[in-house]
Amino acid sequence: MDGQGLIIPLWADLIAVGLGGVQGALFASGFRGEDRRLDLLGVAIIGIVMGMGGGLIRDLLLNVPAATLQSNWYLLTATGAALIGMLLAGLFQRLNAAIVGLDAVVIGLFGAFGTTKALTLGLPVVPAIFVGVCSAVGGGILRDMIMGLPVAIMHVGSLYAVAALVGCAVLAGAQSAGAPSLAASLIAIVVTAVIRLLAVVFDISLPEQRALHRRKVAVETSAIPIIKP
Amino acid sequence: MDGQGLIIPLWADLIAVGLGGVQGALFASGFRGEDRRLDLLGVAIIGIVMGMGGGLIRDLLLNVPAATLQSNWYLLTATGAALIGMLLAGLFQRLNAAIVGLDAVVIGLFGAFGTTKALTLGLPVVPAIFVGVCSAVGGGILRDMIMGLPVAIMHVGSLYAVAALVGCAVLAGAQSAGAPSLAASLIAIVVTAVIRLLAVVFDISLPEQRALHRRKVAVETSAIPIIKP
Amino acid sequence: MDGQGLIIPLWADLIAVGLGGVQGALFASGFRGEDRRLDLLGVAIIGIVMGMGGGLIRDLLLNVPAATLQSNWYLLTATGAALIGMLLAGLFQRLNAAIVGLDAVVIGLFGAFGTTKALTLGLPVVPAIFVGVCSAVGGGILRDMIMGLPVAIMHVGSLYAVAALVGCAVLAGAQSAGAPSLAASLIAIVVTAVIRLLAVVFDISLPEQRALHRRKVAVETSAIPIIKP
Repeated sequence: MDGQGLIIPLWADLIAVGLGGVQGALFASGFRGEDRRLDLLGVAIIGIVMGMGGGLIRDLLLNVPAATLQSNWYLLTATGAALIGMLLAGLFQRLNAAIVGLDAVVIGLFGAFGTTKALTLGLPVVPAIFVGVCSAVGGGILRDMIMGLPVAIMHVGSLYAVAALVGCAVLAGAQSAGAPSLAASLIAIVVTAVIRLLAVVFDISLPEQRALHRRKVAVETSAIPIIKP
Repeated sequence: MDGQGLIIPLWADLIAVGLGGVQGALFASGFRGEDRRLDLLGVAIIGIVMGMGGGLIRDLLLNVPAATLQSNWYLLTATGAALIGMLLAGLFQRLNAAIVGLDAVVIGLFGAFGTTKALTLGLPVVPAIFVGVCSAVGGGILRDMIMGLPVAIMHVGSLYAVAALVGCAVLAGAQSAGAPSLAASLIAIVVTAVIRLLAVVFDISLPEQRALHRRKVAVETSAIPIIKP
Repeated sequence: MDGQGLIIPLWADLIAVGLGGVQGALFASGFRGEDRRLDLLGVAIIGIVMGMGGGLIRDLLLNVPAATLQSNWYLLTATGAALIGMLLAGLFQRLNAAIVGLDAVVIGLFGAFGTTKALTLGLPVVPAIFVGVCSAVGGGILRDMIMGLPVAIMHVGSLYAVAALVGCAVLAGAQSAGAPSLAASLIAIVVTAVIRLLAVVFDISLPEQRALHRRKVAVETSAIPIIKP
């Protein structure tokens, strides 16, 4: 019923969840909205959402029992990591590179775990890659929706979801070509992290769709008053 | 476990998904928020959400494996349709009637598929209609939540969800009365589309709830300063 | 597959759903956003979301068929309660204490039902408590996300989720200690409601996380211009 146990050892899963929890806490501690500040519980929730959200979405899409709810350790790890991340936020935020690097590795881990689990459960290649990408970026989407922020991956940015997409596709391709599961996962994690980091360093992004319409971009962005959606 | 295969042929499902994807792309290409523009990936995501979101929500509610993830074709169709919709957005937008008509048919299709699947899986009539309505409007709700927009069906509008509700109820009624599944579905699709189109043409909407309280609407909307939620 | 039938009688479940529906209608009738008013359908949707959302989230997390979709009564109760709540909103709103009290009991009921169901299905203690808290606060989170409001429990407030957390933990502890299910549930509901009410009466809240960073709160909130997220 749940093929993950065969493939992803608990400690690897918990490392991903813990890194996600730290990520969430760093995000939360950097957040200052209009009079909407987070309390301790809010930070813990963001940590849980970032650490466990991707896995929950993966298991909902796969219609299997949520792996992260089958053991006490996931919630304890995510919450503990969020609290540690919060206490050390001052330190981490001086190390911006550390956050970006951590984030890139987390996307890679969740993407690889998601795609592997989907393939193990017998999904075709395209939806397996889709499940992997949803695992990788789902925590961030949930976080933004709960926080009432624009969902980051929807807007012109730094190839965030694309990095996950390429990594998951590489994993699926490598497995189809007969590569062992562990090697395929490691390659996928490295590919995702490298693309994400290169995108940040060189500030690369996808072309905006409207450029394809040959709209008068310059006019639109300067002369026409901004209309709220 | 998944009763849909017995009833809804793949090609019919893919047509609904494709129309949803085109719809999503047209929506996305018309979207201009404050400095929040969609890139190519964003358009593809909106296409996937509109094309597959209703079916995913339906299968989550029914606790069956997501039909749209059991074949490569769904994601390829939704993404392909979104890209085509984006390239032809200039054309389509001059044909506003085409968009409204397309949308009305899509609501009808998703509503009919959702109700039929729920009834086939043995749900009672009321929840089966509920699942149909969620299938019909779920993609749009997900889209608005991901885009950070007010959820359209929540606010005074043109009988959008009501059209789906009536169509799904007609389908459930017709099946209870012994009508064959295909005929019941076709009637439901036509009923939904016609109600939706009539509502748009004649600008009909539900009474606002506050009118029932006999509040002084005129005073409220003119004199009292608007307070942000 | 669905252990709930053994434990929670339908009438108890329907009372919780009905109270949730009334709650939703009172919320909806008090809502006035910028030109975004709710119509009759919107009020019914909010009633359904508040009455059934927590149970749906619980069953999704537990990967069991949604209990609220296995009988016609849930949707009829939630919708009926929402309409009654709407008609009597003027009355209820003069009784603010009634709303707060009602809300406290509803949180307790949903939390107790969620934790009990999770434990019955064999989940470990920590995730069982988590499922209970999600059942208790999930309807409100869904409501805020659909309404486009900041999610209430994320921000400095009155120990809303904490009340649910303590109640669910007490329930899990009492059951582990051998207390009968019904007694444990009643204690948990009382504990949750009392904490919530005390928090409202004495205006208690959790410390903000940023106080832990020893940031210059006074300076931040007064001198630095507010930046939109």
